[in-house]
Amino acid sequence: MTAPTPRRAPAGAAVLREDVTEAIRAAVFEELAAVGFARMSIEGIARRAGVGKTAVYRRWKSKLDLVLDLVGAFAAQGLPAPDTGSLHGDVRALLEVASHALRHPVASKVIPDLLVEAARHPEIAETVKSTLLDGQQGVVTRIVREAVARGELPEGADPARALDLIVGPLYWRLVVVRTPLPPGYADDLARSAVAALGA
Amino acid sequence: MTAPTPRRAPAGAAVLREDVTEAIRAAVFEELAAVGFARMSIEGIARRAGVGKTAVYRRWKSKLDLVLDLVGAFAAQGLPAPDTGSLHGDVRALLEVASHALRHPVASKVIPDLLVEAARHPEIAETVKSTLLDGQQGVVTRIVREAVARGELPEGADPARALDLIVGPLYWRLVVVRTPLPPGYADDLARSAVAALGA
Repeated sequence: MTAPTPRRAPAGAAVLREDVTEAIRAAVFEELAAVGFARMSIEGIARRAGVGKTAVYRRWKSKLDLVLDLVGAFAAQGLPAPDTGSLHGDVRALLEVASHALRHPVASKVIPDLLVEAARHPEIAETVKSTLLDGQQGVVTRIVREAVARGELPEGADPARALDLIVGPLYWRLVVVRTPLPPGYADDLARSAVAALGA
Repeated sequence: MTAPTPRRAPAGAAVLREDVTEAIRAAVFEELAAVGFARMSIEGIARRAGVGKTAVYRRWKSKLDLVLDLVGAFAAQGLPAPDTGSLHGDVRALLEVASHALRHPVASKVIPDLLVEAARHPEIAETVKSTLLDGQQGVVTRIVREAVARGELPEGADPARALDLIVGPLYWRLVVVRTPLPPGYADDLARSAVAALGA
């Protein structure tokens, strides 16, 4: 006969709470991918996660909060600032990270969804902008500043335009046109972006 | 006393039918802008147009058909092929047209909506692609071919990559980031795109 396992209620409850949170997060991704933001409901998320609606509402007050929380976590882990010592190297590294990120379900399904909402609701636009774009703009601003310091770009090079020239073509191709990148595409794009920045 | 106006039932009926069609089209734009594609219903469109649901279903079999019909009409009237005699002039002219088009409600609200649907439904993706992208790709292919013929671009320049480099940054800025273009931006972008194409 073995001794009974001691009950560790508080710790067990904490683990359970974490599990529920993770189950809800996973369910949100699945629901988003399946039906999109507009049609997604807290009820559908709860059903998919196998929890009650209250469990969702205890953690997030709306589906928008839920999605912005996930997007924020995704954006925070992404985009390390490259520091390769050359403009071409930095742009190439940024394109590598961005192209990986834009193929992730969060980017390819959830970001377009959020943009649709952002086009109609200024408060969503503001949150999406600060969550998703400010981080990217910060990285590009640093890349441009260092390229200017090395003499690779002229004084006064505009970081906002640089972001457009580096990320724009990739986003267009991966998220709008949605055709696969041919081999060597990221290299071509890096070369093009560097030429575009210097023009 | 004036003579009674002769009844012109068939012609009058034809005019009325056209009016109803136009009223429905206008209502679709208003509904799309207000609630988006996912939440839009044939019922809401009919209500806004002041017609019965049957009047809508007689003309289009679903809300997707309706929206694709409008997008097709919009895409057909847009994008005249520029023929300025230089790559820079052609790119500049294309950016002018594209920047105008991307500020139109169809582009800034409806296209993102359709991309959200396209991400989940391959048949919508196919229609959006042939309706919206093939026209643009055709124009850019011609611009690239003529630039190659004039010796401004090397043989084998890739028209798909050219579309990414020309339209990508503008789309990113106007539809994703949604910040106003500073003065002279289209000129800067044209110069950048030409440098990017030649790199």
